[in-house]
Amino acid sequence: MQSAAPSDPARPFLDAIRFDAAGLVPCIAQQHDTGEVLMMAWMNAEAVAETLATGRVCYFSRSRGGLWRKGETSGQRQRLVELRLDCDGDTLLALVDQTGVACHTGRRSCFYRAMRDGTLAEIAAPLADPKALYGA
Amino acid sequence: MQSAAPSDPARPFLDAIRFDAAGLVPCIAQQHDTGEVLMMAWMNAEAVAETLATGRVCYFSRSRGGLWRKGETSGQRQRLVELRLDCDGDTLLALVDQTGVACHTGRRSCFYRAMRDGTLAEIAAPLADPKALYGA
Repeated sequence: MQSAAPSDPARPFLDAIRFDAAGLVPCIAQQHDTGEVLMMAWMNAEAVAETLATGRVCYFSRSRGGLWRKGETSGQRQRLVELRLDCDGDTLLALVDQTGVACHTGRRSCFYRAMRDGTLAEIAAPLADPKALYGA
Repeated sequence: MQSAAPSDPARPFLDAIRFDAAGLVPCIAQQHDTGEVLMMAWMNAEAVAETLATGRVCYFSRSRGGLWRKGETSGQRQRLVELRLDCDGDTLLALVDQTGVACHTGRRSCFYRAMRDGTLAEIAAPLADPKALYGA
């Protein structure tokens, strides 16, 4: 008898996802207790399976063309609380517990710019120095 | 002197958006006061400009290939509270006040399926009858 493939526990979830032509699906990360929307990034099937298996959020970096284990360099990890799927299966919502900051600019959330009074305003300041997170 | 184009007030925002190759940008809709993530859909430049101009959220329907004024058929509109942009300009976050339900299934949020105990579980029930929203 063959042993089960490592990704099998994720199968019911993977089967329900409608990946795009590039094999990717967008994933929104939301802080589970405050409701703050932290970021949006992309996952391929392998990233979804790894995220469910490890409980640590793993994306697919379109610029680097490979798995992106959030926080691997910066330490700003995301622990998965729950992974959700939308009605038509083409978007994920990850409820997470974010260590430190989600944004590479050192801000808690990537959505720190807003249209206010006819201008694009910065509505949040960095909480961490990107140089300290990623090295000088 | 030429009169300004109707979309000019949205210009600072539009200029900061990095639309994809299809001229679209994903937009997350979040209920402004509860923090609930309601849905994710797409906008083109015209939809962004109309949303900012009218204060009513307008998407671009990829299936129909045209503007999608949320709630036009169902009455389940989204009033824009604030439109935000992420660090690299390729995702929008719309803080909205949702009338009724956001999902075409009659649920408040489109993200009503979650991975729980190894299965894909429905974690929210419809609050409205889709037939009543869209006609039989």
